[in-house]
Amino acid sequence: MTDFAATKAMFHLPEGMIYLDGNSLGPLPKATEARIAKTVTDEWGEMLITGWNRAGWMARPTDDGDRIGRLIGAEPSHVVLGDTLSIKVYQALAAAIDLVPERKVILTDSGNFPSDIYMAEGLTKSLGRGHELRVVAPEDVADHIDDDLAVMMLTQGDYRTGRLHDMAALTQKAHAAGGIAIWDLAHTAGAMPVDLIGCNVDFAVGCTYKYLNAGPGSPAFIYVAPRHIDHCQPALSGWLGHEKPFAFDLEYRPGTGIERMRVGTPSVLQMAALDSALTIWDQVDMQALRAASIALTEQFIADVEARCPMLTLASPRDPQQRGSQVSFAFEHGYAAMQALIARKVVGDFRAPDIMRFGFAPLFIDKADVTKAVDVMADVMTNRLWDNPVYKQVARVT
Amino acid sequence: MTDFAATKAMFHLPEGMIYLDGNSLGPLPKATEARIAKTVTDEWGEMLITGWNRAGWMARPTDDGDRIGRLIGAEPSHVVLGDTLSIKVYQALAAAIDLVPERKVILTDSGNFPSDIYMAEGLTKSLGRGHELRVVAPEDVADHIDDDLAVMMLTQGDYRTGRLHDMAALTQKAHAAGGIAIWDLAHTAGAMPVDLIGCNVDFAVGCTYKYLNAGPGSPAFIYVAPRHIDHCQPALSGWLGHEKPFAFDLEYRPGTGIERMRVGTPSVLQMAALDSALTIWDQVDMQALRAASIALTEQFIADVEARCPMLTLASPRDPQQRGSQVSFAFEHGYAAMQALIARKVVGDFRAPDIMRFGFAPLFIDKADVTKAVDVMADVMTNRLWDNPVYKQVARVT
Repeated sequence: MTDFAATKAMFHLPEGMIYLDGNSLGPLPKATEARIAKTVTDEWGEMLITGWNRAGWMARPTDDGDRIGRLIGAEPSHVVLGDTLSIKVYQALAAAIDLVPERKVILTDSGNFPSDIYMAEGLTKSLGRGHELRVVAPEDVADHIDDDLAVMMLTQGDYRTGRLHDMAALTQKAHAAGGIAIWDLAHTAGAMPVDLIGCNVDFAVGCTYKYLNAGPGSPAFIYVAPRHIDHCQPALSGWLGHEKPFAFDLEYRPGTGIERMRVGTPSVLQMAALDSALTIWDQVDMQALRAASIALTEQFIADVEARCPMLTLASPRDPQQRGSQVSFAFEHGYAAMQALIARKVVGDFRAPDIMRFGFAPLFIDKADVTKAVDVMADVMTNRLWDNPVYKQVARVT
Repeated sequence: MTDFAATKAMFHLPEGMIYLDGNSLGPLPKATEARIAKTVTDEWGEMLITGWNRAGWMARPTDDGDRIGRLIGAEPSHVVLGDTLSIKVYQALAAAIDLVPERKVILTDSGNFPSDIYMAEGLTKSLGRGHELRVVAPEDVADHIDDDLAVMMLTQGDYRTGRLHDMAALTQKAHAAGGIAIWDLAHTAGAMPVDLIGCNVDFAVGCTYKYLNAGPGSPAFIYVAPRHIDHCQPALSGWLGHEKPFAFDLEYRPGTGIERMRVGTPSVLQMAALDSALTIWDQVDMQALRAASIALTEQFIADVEARCPMLTLASPRDPQQRGSQVSFAFEHGYAAMQALIARKVVGDFRAPDIMRFGFAPLFIDKADVTKAVDVMADVMTNRLWDNPVYKQVARVT
């Protein structure tokens, strides 16, 4: 069992704030401050260039890839860190396309994170091989899997509503049709157990700055199934994915296994923050996390619906069909979210009318949910959002 | 004029060490420790998600791009930071290829950094449009510029020897042949004045962890000439290069100007380290830097040749033809470099026999050169390298 009171104590949370936006940027683990200072002062400052070996900088993308692998049900040595999620999407899609060269349909849905769709658009345009990027409604994905399918590329958890796709069923259907399945775990890695092996997933990608709490701009990860990795010819064939990076050969030869999905120099300071955050994750039982997450979201939905009837649930009501976030639709959602933030209940807003709240059991407990709903009831019942100061639209992130 | 004694005092340098490897990984500026701590504790820790706007995280890639732009002779608003150098090479080459779609020759040289060549290989293979990657000897580049040229892709300063290409003449010749010129500034940005505008360069890329002292894994940069940027359709079309990233549209529309070369979430901690390092660079006169650099390399060559006749100069003798590093060839170079490092004179080794020494006037002065050569003379004259402990080849970085 995981002691979530103990994990909560491991985070720095601003005084009085209930932070329900860990699904966008996770909070700072207390131990990370000292860890980064050590990396800066003792490693960069004192070891200088020798830090690449002596401080383990060079090996961290695969070492920590394995620690993330446990959370997402991957085989050991099949996850590597680096770059950004958009770059990892590009790598996965480029490799997947090559596995089924005669097929032309790339299937995704309108609930996918836009950058995934943009990267697919850029890749297929620059390839110029007649691929069709087919964007359908999330509920229509299964119906569009047919014998034309090259690659099905989906995000497991919808960034707006937390709705979950059925990874096992859709992957199975894509395979039956002869296609390849890529899953983006941005909203599920660290939010719930993921079972890449059990679902027979081909490629997966994700980020570490949300539920994994590795900090702003922390590296992304990529998973490639063992049956594919040796057949992947990386499109982004950088030196650190080379078989012998420090031989400085003039010809590219892909490295062994997942190492070939590395590209350039890893972001050492960000990797240190990730490494620190993973010391918390190493202690977490993912089934216990899921149970705690469901308890929090169920409580939140019940309490908000009881006390804020003007809000409409935008997430699936069945907890098995949603991740670790809850969204409500409200016409004045932007202003209402600003009013909440001003009262230290921090969620975020996604156009046109979605108020998003993330529930990370590592640092959110039942008492937080109770307090958050008290504030929400006050804001909604007393129309506190109806104030010009909350209606000014700042640059939204 | 720049006060290099003052800049030297701004760096943390390990006690007794003469660090001649700033051309691989620059040392830690003293102010950077506090700056990163502030970013971690006060920004990430306290501002959380609002840091993207309130702490300026989102704008930093372009804000600091301009500060680098001054060092490399770029127009304002035409340099942006992000990703790794390999990714930026890919972006530049993909965009350049699209500008001359009917041409097929990509010309580079065997002195280019291997990852640049690998990325070109990966891109052209995945495009499958019959591009020829022509790798010639550095001295033969000019002779291979002809009417077939699509893109000439070179690194201005050779990573092994510091030899400089004539950026102005080669760019002019490439243009006269109807081609596009991409320059990698990894070994010249911060090493000497670069004049992108004066040389009429089309695309440039570079890293910030060498002479610019932004730390291990700090972001790369890309420059696109004003005449091209509006015609570039990014191959790596990530959301932060979108015209309106936070509108979450399903179709990609490239952002204004250089913003479109952004891809994913910037590495905020690394960017903070860069931002800190640039406060030193903001004070530096690049002509003064070059004069100081030449004085140091001239002194080093003269002293080493006088006292270590068994070493053979591998860098150009004419200072105008070399950057801010000096290399010597020596049969037992690996062991000799280990012997030097054990005596706190830190350079590095590149196969098969190159001993590399970087001279960054920001933190290396004439007294350091004198001391370094004293140690070298001892190591060489007394064959101190001829010791089994120095001959064990560790993983070389």
